[in-house]
Amino acid sequence: MSSLENELIRVVSKPTGIPAPENFQLEKQVVPELEAGQLLIRNEWLSVDPAMRGWLADANNYASVRVGDVMRSLCVGTVIKSTTDAFMEGDRVMGWFGWQHYAAIKPAAVVQKITATDLPASLYLGVLGLNGVTAATALDKLGAPKAGETVAVSTAAGGVGSCVGQLAKALGCRTIGLTGSPEKLRTCLEEFNYDHVINYKTDDIDAALKTQCPDGIDVYFDNTAGAISDAVMQHLAIGARVIVCGTASIPSWDPPPVGPRVNRILLTRRARMQGFILFDHKDTYPTYVKQLEDLIRAGKMNYREDVTEGLHTAPGAIGELYRGDNLGKRLIRL
Amino acid sequence: MSSLENELIRVVSKPTGIPAPENFQLEKQVVPELEAGQLLIRNEWLSVDPAMRGWLADANNYASVRVGDVMRSLCVGTVIKSTTDAFMEGDRVMGWFGWQHYAAIKPAAVVQKITATDLPASLYLGVLGLNGVTAATALDKLGAPKAGETVAVSTAAGGVGSCVGQLAKALGCRTIGLTGSPEKLRTCLEEFNYDHVINYKTDDIDAALKTQCPDGIDVYFDNTAGAISDAVMQHLAIGARVIVCGTASIPSWDPPPVGPRVNRILLTRRARMQGFILFDHKDTYPTYVKQLEDLIRAGKMNYREDVTEGLHTAPGAIGELYRGDNLGKRLIRL
Repeated sequence: MSSLENELIRVVSKPTGIPAPENFQLEKQVVPELEAGQLLIRNEWLSVDPAMRGWLADANNYASVRVGDVMRSLCVGTVIKSTTDAFMEGDRVMGWFGWQHYAAIKPAAVVQKITATDLPASLYLGVLGLNGVTAATALDKLGAPKAGETVAVSTAAGGVGSCVGQLAKALGCRTIGLTGSPEKLRTCLEEFNYDHVINYKTDDIDAALKTQCPDGIDVYFDNTAGAISDAVMQHLAIGARVIVCGTASIPSWDPPPVGPRVNRILLTRRARMQGFILFDHKDTYPTYVKQLEDLIRAGKMNYREDVTEGLHTAPGAIGELYRGDNLGKRLIRL
Repeated sequence: MSSLENELIRVVSKPTGIPAPENFQLEKQVVPELEAGQLLIRNEWLSVDPAMRGWLADANNYASVRVGDVMRSLCVGTVIKSTTDAFMEGDRVMGWFGWQHYAAIKPAAVVQKITATDLPASLYLGVLGLNGVTAATALDKLGAPKAGETVAVSTAAGGVGSCVGQLAKALGCRTIGLTGSPEKLRTCLEEFNYDHVINYKTDDIDAALKTQCPDGIDVYFDNTAGAISDAVMQHLAIGARVIVCGTASIPSWDPPPVGPRVNRILLTRRARMQGFILFDHKDTYPTYVKQLEDLIRAGKMNYREDVTEGLHTAPGAIGELYRGDNLGKRLIRL
């Protein structure tokens, strides 16, 4: 094994806002010998997620990454050497293997073994991974939408948002998608089955919501937190549930940006606004993966992947996400 | 009956911010003959509540009061004439009788018949009325505090806040009260059993919370919504519940004032922020009245009343509430 050469992306500085290429460095290294109890993984797919900005920020994050660490990431790979009975050579696994070609890890870093052979393995980083399971868990546990209710999604074409829209639609909800380009609008309607779409860059959001949601919004799944949300919040129905899943439109929280206070809306609409982090819901992860696998097999869950080739595309990938360049789950194939 | 003279307070204009005396007018009128199914009530106690500002505001309120109406208010009075079997002359009742001496009402305007004879009737407008039941219902249903948790209350000495603090204490929580004068601080400690108090006008709230709540705040019962809340929100524990019960420190919501965005706090702390209006919880009203009656009888629920004499003191009373002049439930005795 010691002749294998690893390439990895190391964090070399903390970003002040959105992580940029200069916060990372590509390094070459010999793959170390395995310690007892470790597995050696050959990565095939690396994930790029909006949450990475939070992991890299200094302040109180639930999954901090420090300067000097290999960049934290979910990956799909194959076990090529095992010193434990838990996994065998040849097992396909998804887990915390980092932005690198080879990872020597403990079994606890594996999130799940991939047993389905009828679905592409890369899906376990997107629609069947963090994105899909975030969408399914948060929508079900925090949003609890009922058939006939109106569900609005603020990053409607994104990795999480596109799942939310289709999950809500499968439950019999009316779905309203907010997104930022004509191409994304079209994808939302044609592939992700939204009932209505709004271009937040060119439409009058307030007027559009007045027309499309005359009875208000029952569930608002929010990944943005800025001006888009300010407009949507004005249209909450009585008893609405707002899922705070991301804050993509806020470039920096230090100092905290100001915006319209939400207290009076929450009070008069008896609405609930709640933060969601998937790591709190590990116990139900397999349940929601299964729900999503079944929806994909039934043709009720479409997805898009946006793939770049090679580890060298990783350092710029988080910034591209925040610029909204991608259409679907952002992945890196090795 | 037609010889009885009524005095009433009519709403003559909409306030732009906090209701002021010029928005009201005292009128004299002959008490009308009862229609079939009505009751005639002689009011003894009138309530003054912060919620009245919302009722009088133009925008989308859940209980709007229009120009020309007798000012909406909960009152305690005695049935002096009944044309229905539901109530008898002499019954003590609490309900929506308005700021006036006599009210001809339908039985549906009665919130409850007062049957306890060992407790003062005025309590059914305060600690056993809207305030106490708001505190008990919201704390239980939205806050769900567990023994050992830390509960912070932003209007700690007020009608609702003083009940919240004592209810939380009775459940075995640590209670932190925020209030605005040395006299109120003393009352909070001596009468309302808070474990710690903070003077939001003179103390450094952030530093005080850092010292007094090193593990964060599990339940924040908020009646203020402004700078006090901005400071408290920074100290939420993981899984915190924020009860949005009032917005007393915001003089006007038109246009909506700006403040620090809360999304990132809610996200990283997986916290929940939820609006509460008692009218949604009519079915459980008697349950919480009984809980509070029992706590009073057990000596675990102290209260203060702040009483002025005569209907002419009503028009200025809402403004006095918002200036924080009162110490305890604001009442008018007729």
